Amino acid sequence: MSQDVLTALFGDPFAAMNTVGLVAFALVGASKAIREEFDLFGIAIVGLMMAFAGGATRDLLVTRVPLALQTPIEIWLGLLGVGLAMGLNVVLSTPDTHPITLVSDAIGLAAFTTTGAIVATEAGVSAFGVVAIGTINAVGGGAVADVLLNRSPFILFEDFYASCSVLGGTAYVLLSSVAGVDGVAAAVCAGTTVLVRLVAVSYDWHVPTVQELGLRS
Amino acid sequence: MSQDVLTALFGDPFAAMNTVGLVAFALVGASKAIREEFDLFGIAIVGLMMAFAGGATRDLLVTRVPLALQTPIEIWLGLLGVGLAMGLNVVLSTPDTHPITLVSDAIGLAAFTTTGAIVATEAGVSAFGVVAIGTINAVGGGAVADVLLNRSPFILFEDFYASCSVLGGTAYVLLSSVAGVDGVAAAVCAGTTVLVRLVAVSYDWHVPTVQELGLRS
Amino acid sequence: MSQDVLTALFGDPFAAMNTVGLVAFALVGASKAIREEFDLFGIAIVGLMMAFAGGATRDLLVTRVPLALQTPIEIWLGLLGVGLAMGLNVVLSTPDTHPITLVSDAIGLAAFTTTGAIVATEAGVSAFGVVAIGTINAVGGGAVADVLLNRSPFILFEDFYASCSVLGGTAYVLLSSVAGVDGVAAAVCAGTTVLVRLVAVSYDWHVPTVQELGLRS
Repeated sequence: MSQDVLTALFGDPFAAMNTVGLVAFALVGASKAIREEFDLFGIAIVGLMMAFAGGATRDLLVTRVPLALQTPIEIWLGLLGVGLAMGLNVVLSTPDTHPITLVSDAIGLAAFTTTGAIVATEAGVSAFGVVAIGTINAVGGGAVADVLLNRSPFILFEDFYASCSVLGGTAYVLLSSVAGVDGVAAAVCAGTTVLVRLVAVSYDWHVPTVQELGLRS
Repeated sequence: MSQDVLTALFGDPFAAMNTVGLVAFALVGASKAIREEFDLFGIAIVGLMMAFAGGATRDLLVTRVPLALQTPIEIWLGLLGVGLAMGLNVVLSTPDTHPITLVSDAIGLAAFTTTGAIVATEAGVSAFGVVAIGTINAVGGGAVADVLLNRSPFILFEDFYASCSVLGGTAYVLLSSVAGVDGVAAAVCAGTTVLVRLVAVSYDWHVPTVQELGLRS
Repeated sequence: MSQDVLTALFGDPFAAMNTVGLVAFALVGASKAIREEFDLFGIAIVGLMMAFAGGATRDLLVTRVPLALQTPIEIWLGLLGVGLAMGLNVVLSTPDTHPITLVSDAIGLAAFTTTGAIVATEAGVSAFGVVAIGTINAVGGGAVADVLLNRSPFILFEDFYASCSVLGGTAYVLLSSVAGVDGVAAAVCAGTTVLVRLVAVSYDWHVPTVQELGLRS
């Protein structure tokens, strides 16, 4: 691979996180569509929508043309993830619940929380706006994929999914806006998100309901 | 509360309607999520999406960064509505169908129809555009909340819901574009919408289907 | 009809395709809502959303105010399609599966693939972006209509639906970006899309699933 392509893919924190997130989420989305026995075209659409929908929503919120429509390399990263999902399907029996897919999902969540926080900070929105756009960038793709699969968006039922992004985005705001260390902020944001997510999955953490808190008479 | 905060909240017709609408719709959205036994994070998300989704869609349609991401005060109004819903849940047995919730919903509908019509008029769209953006601002949040709750958006089944916004928006266009009295137009728009909605609920009005009209052979 | 109106409706490839697509898709969307026994307001909403949602998404993706909110004539074309669907319902027993509706759908798909490709090319996005925006313009309305009808967006289950747009959009990119013949590109794009769609429906073509390819162990 040429030096130019490597720079486009990993040259700065945004590019590196974006590359990782696109491949990881396309793999997860395509795996879900394979389990639902969608045809090849449907698998590609769900995989690409999972990879691109969050970032496209982020770009629309800061009123710019979605990056995925401007830079040709993004589509190839998405298709690479879709191809990996098809490959995994050959060698694994239940690819959509396999640890590889769960870890990919956590990595994509962390990577996209960070890209969202970076873009939002550059756009000059409020601190709440940075956390909100980071979270939308991270969970938007999965929510759209679930709607396409005719399921209730799982982010509302999966405890500590979107909340991991909120924690990561908050860490970014504190380190970036307050301490002014952007590179460190990106690393801590991604690290916090993926760590909390993996620990939450391993220990089956959950957020209580109002009924469990005893607030219902 | 300082004079500055009061001005930001109620200083002009747009601000006043926006403040009322955000609290009212967050309360309604959170109440729906409580009934579905969502966890605390899910309740906050549904409440905030119901409060912000319509206005964010309005802002995207006139190509500006959503207000909710720019002004920090909006998120606190949304969270206030979510908190009120949790409080109501302690003292009432069926908060989501209680008159307080139904009236809140009608007030939010009227307030957001008006904010949508004001923003659309300033953006210089067509008369149809003003009515459409007013209606989208008003019903967008409820539609998104229903999709999150995995229900068919109720606005299509609830007779005289979106149609109340269409009537209110039409009143706004007639008084604003034609008569040129913006303050009066805002008041009449909100009044028309909330009145028609409450009367329609009280008397159980409905719009006929094609089958009922006898058009089907 | 005056010369001015005719020019607005059919004066250039974009206008002509847009006019045809709006009427055709409003008819299809309204027919679906009639079968689901929606009320008159719901029928109009589903018909108009099917006609406008794809184009509005296209316009948002290239960050401009949706055309449907700016030009008053668009709403009348949408309402014409809704009216035609109600008329068809009087004379036909199953309007939503009648050949007239199936052909209208194929024509709308072809017309909107072309308008999307034209707008995307003018906005200067990548080749992938032109195909993606053409496809989103074409299938976005149907996907939104299906969500409103509480069905999984049919585009994922209907083989050779979105794929027809992808083929048409690819033809447009090759003829427009490469050969530089825009008028011919528009005609070939629309022709390819409608032809592949009608042949696929007639011969019941389908795209294989991963399972059918024998990739699943």
